[in-house]
Amino acid sequence: MNHTGQKVSLCGWVQYTRETGGLAFVVLRDRYGLTQLTFDKSANAGLFEQAVQLGREFVVRVSGTVRERESKNKNMPTGDIEIIADELKVLNKAQTPPFTIEDNTDGGDDLRMKYRYLDIRRNPVRESLLLRHRMAQETRTFLSKENFVEVETPVLIKSTPEGARDFIVPSRMNPGQFYALPQSPQTFKQLLMVAGLDRYFQIVKCFRDEDLRADRQPEFTQIDCEMSFVEQEDILQMFEALACHLFKTVKGLDIAGMPRITYADAMKFYGNDKPDTRFEMKFVELNGVVKNKGFKVFDDAEFVAGICAKGAASFSRKQIDELTEFVKRPQVGATGLVYVRYNEDGTLKSSVDKFYNEEELKNWAAAFGAEKGDLMLLLAGPTGKTRKALSELRLEMGERLGLRDKNKFSCLWVLDFPLLEYNEEHARWFAMHHPFTSPLPEDMAKLDNPAQYGEIRANAYDIVINGVEVGGGSIRIFDKDLQGKMFSVLGFSPEEAQAQFGFLMNAFEFGAPPHGGIAFGFDRLCSLFGGADGIRDFIAFPKNNSGRDVMIDSPSVIDEKQLKELGISIRAIQ
Amino acid sequence: MNHTGQKVSLCGWVQYTRETGGLAFVVLRDRYGLTQLTFDKSANAGLFEQAVQLGREFVVRVSGTVRERESKNKNMPTGDIEIIADELKVLNKAQTPPFTIEDNTDGGDDLRMKYRYLDIRRNPVRESLLLRHRMAQETRTFLSKENFVEVETPVLIKSTPEGARDFIVPSRMNPGQFYALPQSPQTFKQLLMVAGLDRYFQIVKCFRDEDLRADRQPEFTQIDCEMSFVEQEDILQMFEALACHLFKTVKGLDIAGMPRITYADAMKFYGNDKPDTRFEMKFVELNGVVKNKGFKVFDDAEFVAGICAKGAASFSRKQIDELTEFVKRPQVGATGLVYVRYNEDGTLKSSVDKFYNEEELKNWAAAFGAEKGDLMLLLAGPTGKTRKALSELRLEMGERLGLRDKNKFSCLWVLDFPLLEYNEEHARWFAMHHPFTSPLPEDMAKLDNPAQYGEIRANAYDIVINGVEVGGGSIRIFDKDLQGKMFSVLGFSPEEAQAQFGFLMNAFEFGAPPHGGIAFGFDRLCSLFGGADGIRDFIAFPKNNSGRDVMIDSPSVIDEKQLKELGISIRAIQ
Repeated sequence: MNHTGQKVSLCGWVQYTRETGGLAFVVLRDRYGLTQLTFDKSANAGLFEQAVQLGREFVVRVSGTVRERESKNKNMPTGDIEIIADELKVLNKAQTPPFTIEDNTDGGDDLRMKYRYLDIRRNPVRESLLLRHRMAQETRTFLSKENFVEVETPVLIKSTPEGARDFIVPSRMNPGQFYALPQSPQTFKQLLMVAGLDRYFQIVKCFRDEDLRADRQPEFTQIDCEMSFVEQEDILQMFEALACHLFKTVKGLDIAGMPRITYADAMKFYGNDKPDTRFEMKFVELNGVVKNKGFKVFDDAEFVAGICAKGAASFSRKQIDELTEFVKRPQVGATGLVYVRYNEDGTLKSSVDKFYNEEELKNWAAAFGAEKGDLMLLLAGPTGKTRKALSELRLEMGERLGLRDKNKFSCLWVLDFPLLEYNEEHARWFAMHHPFTSPLPEDMAKLDNPAQYGEIRANAYDIVINGVEVGGGSIRIFDKDLQGKMFSVLGFSPEEAQAQFGFLMNAFEFGAPPHGGIAFGFDRLCSLFGGADGIRDFIAFPKNNSGRDVMIDSPSVIDEKQLKELGISIRAIQ
Repeated sequence: MNHTGQKVSLCGWVQYTRETGGLAFVVLRDRYGLTQLTFDKSANAGLFEQAVQLGREFVVRVSGTVRERESKNKNMPTGDIEIIADELKVLNKAQTPPFTIEDNTDGGDDLRMKYRYLDIRRNPVRESLLLRHRMAQETRTFLSKENFVEVETPVLIKSTPEGARDFIVPSRMNPGQFYALPQSPQTFKQLLMVAGLDRYFQIVKCFRDEDLRADRQPEFTQIDCEMSFVEQEDILQMFEALACHLFKTVKGLDIAGMPRITYADAMKFYGNDKPDTRFEMKFVELNGVVKNKGFKVFDDAEFVAGICAKGAASFSRKQIDELTEFVKRPQVGATGLVYVRYNEDGTLKSSVDKFYNEEELKNWAAAFGAEKGDLMLLLAGPTGKTRKALSELRLEMGERLGLRDKNKFSCLWVLDFPLLEYNEEHARWFAMHHPFTSPLPEDMAKLDNPAQYGEIRANAYDIVINGVEVGGGSIRIFDKDLQGKMFSVLGFSPEEAQAQFGFLMNAFEFGAPPHGGIAFGFDRLCSLFGGADGIRDFIAFPKNNSGRDVMIDSPSVIDEKQLKELGISIRAIQ
């Protein structure tokens, strides 16, 4: 774009001003970038005076002529040009903002959230919101082309005790009764399939009243989808194509396919149902190789396994000590770490040389497929716990070796999740996904045998990108009897099932088609595309970890009159 | 599309079956239409037997060969072809539905709502939802191209006493405190302008806990938009273009411009701030023509006005009596009706011939611009009340004369609304639009004189289509002092204003740009495009007039345990 010589008019915010030798420079910021305005004292002293008095974040309208800059600024996208101003109007003044409106601001988290409207003026936050916009539009474009119809499902629905805690809304017109906000539109999208809509989607707010961790919000957004007359394969192909479309249109990236792995293999090779596959470093199980050589830790362990970190033999003693400390943290939970260095000179050095000679370590190396220069790291203990710890160690090593590049993307389908998991506290089985998930056809018979509940695989799938579960779904039950059986497995009496989900089970009696779907966590997906760790900057007005919006100061107390009208009162604290 | 001879596989629902002379015909319904399947007993007796046993709404998968029909069915879009079936699989059985799945169903409203998933299978409801989908996608496409960014604003916000009643949500993590559901994202979109996002939109759910009329829903959807650095003219042009884009892409219609009228003129010529301009029949004021001829009703009236119905001189005595009854209804509120027939032979006949001779009636006709064959209808009384009644009469005449064709669209901007209206009950001024609306610059000074409050015009605009207000907005206040003055005019103390809207007023101190926006009632807009009277069938799962979803039976009672956790209890009914 060469606008040199053109008359232009711009509106925006004063980023900063600078004065030198009879010239005033004002850098103006708008949504589209920065532009330098130049005021020449000798040309118009009055205008020059106005310019030097502009404060940071003043809102101005300026007119002038575009000119090529003599000293070009390579750090500014519009650094090649400047505007020689001949008119200036202050549209609004501004107090000095409580933090700098710069990419690296001096504002802390709390201050940024309190003045979120100033925080959004910063490039990184604005860019995150613009990215989110593009993601949403491209999702809709893709799905609309594929004949999905976007249907808005209700926000004021019915509370159900299954799953997470609901937010509830007292009904003034129906005193003593309450709506609930949806944790997902699950049952409604299934009803839309019964209704014959064939392909549904919605980008939709969902709500969960749970204690918040750093990256959880009480309200969050899903890309929610459902299809009729499909099997798992149809869904995997459709949403693989959606992911590829988003990577292509939003990031300009071609994704080379989306491998599939079973839940069982994900646990075996990564100790994790959402493995980060940007790097290999798969688990190697070593019970057959390391036992019965007199090393009690391994001999007594249910499970010994390790990872081979390519090129990490050069890790110093100190670095390995750090890794040992890392695995011994309570969150990781291992009791210790065994290492073997495969030195460049072909020798092997381990922390258990007392028990294993070089010949034996060579066998280990062979099992790992290790080469000179590699570092092998081994953990031992109960299977589940050790896998979990080794998964953490693998991720830590990936991090330390720079294998977790935020600009590289590796996608994966994880299939065949367990249908049910036993909860000791409640002494009953819970649905791992939700109670509407169909078992795999070949595992159906096991529903009749409580001893086999744990072995039943669900017709369910998760989509994992860079070790983050960004979406998941399943083929649903569409038969009333099977749904009834599932509720009974989950400990519902027929009456409870009818009271809570009767409308869905009844719907299944009027010609329900086979159907299945998926939901993506949209906030998370955006932050992943944006290469960010957290989701907050991809949400315009997020809440803090106490569920509070500190900008508007909400939640807040409300009038006694209003409570009375709603037929509720506040309990005395007990 | 000519698929003759092709092998196809179809899934769908059995609309009906019919058997004749060794042939079974099954009409299959899917989202895309109806298809006839033919089963020949002589070709495959077993398959034929299966087909004749299919019940209505059974879900089937069928394979076969496409063939041109011998007797084509002109009433079916796919009536030219049939499928000669060679495979049939029942995917799910169905009970007989409680009402017929036909365009004109035998199901009443309550039954349809209870089994909404069956109701949606009917063409008119499905088509309404598909239309809504297209409207939403085209809105997003248009606005995205115009550089609007879609930003999701929070659903859990803060209760404010101004405006309609809020739905509230108890906060478990902040006992005794409550969120509110937004009546609109008004303050958030203004903050996004302060944040520099320049052009914002959102298709967003809003909530209002009001007593419901036939066409109000507790949750409804808006197309919500805001722009910075604009004046009224920019907004009118942008959203006129959006409306034209929707008419063009969704309905294939070219809208010939969008006339503008002031609120004052709308009241003067139509007695209505949302006039139906599909037809003329403007008010003619007659005080100067009809008074002082001895007819006491007119002589005593503050205001005499009428409409001229083209070609309605042929209305019978009975029809005119019906009109008289119509205007005397309490909802209309006139005391009587005067008519003048301009007969085809040039004579004039009125209901007040006693007081006015033909010469005088000729003057009336001249004032109306009436021609032979027209019918003039006059009302008299206090100005406001008479205008309202005459507006109703005008709409009734439009209806009777077939001038309100649902497939014809007439759009209009109504400008310069009053800023404030006095509420006798509360004995204070209220904002007609909302407290963030800017006065017209030329009326600004009147804010200092309470006696002139009623004369202040707002920098506000409504978009009216076929007599329905489908959207409205304003240029906003962006100056803290003016906003403070406005709150004071509305009876807020400075402390109350700060407590409720402090975050917005503070934001105005950090460089707020001039801005303005608009919001469209999306449910209403869709129903208008769909040529429907009500909005219900444009909402997948609407609530009834008691705010109840009869399908899922919500709202409902919830566990005492859950209430306790939330720190609230239900009041005894008093």
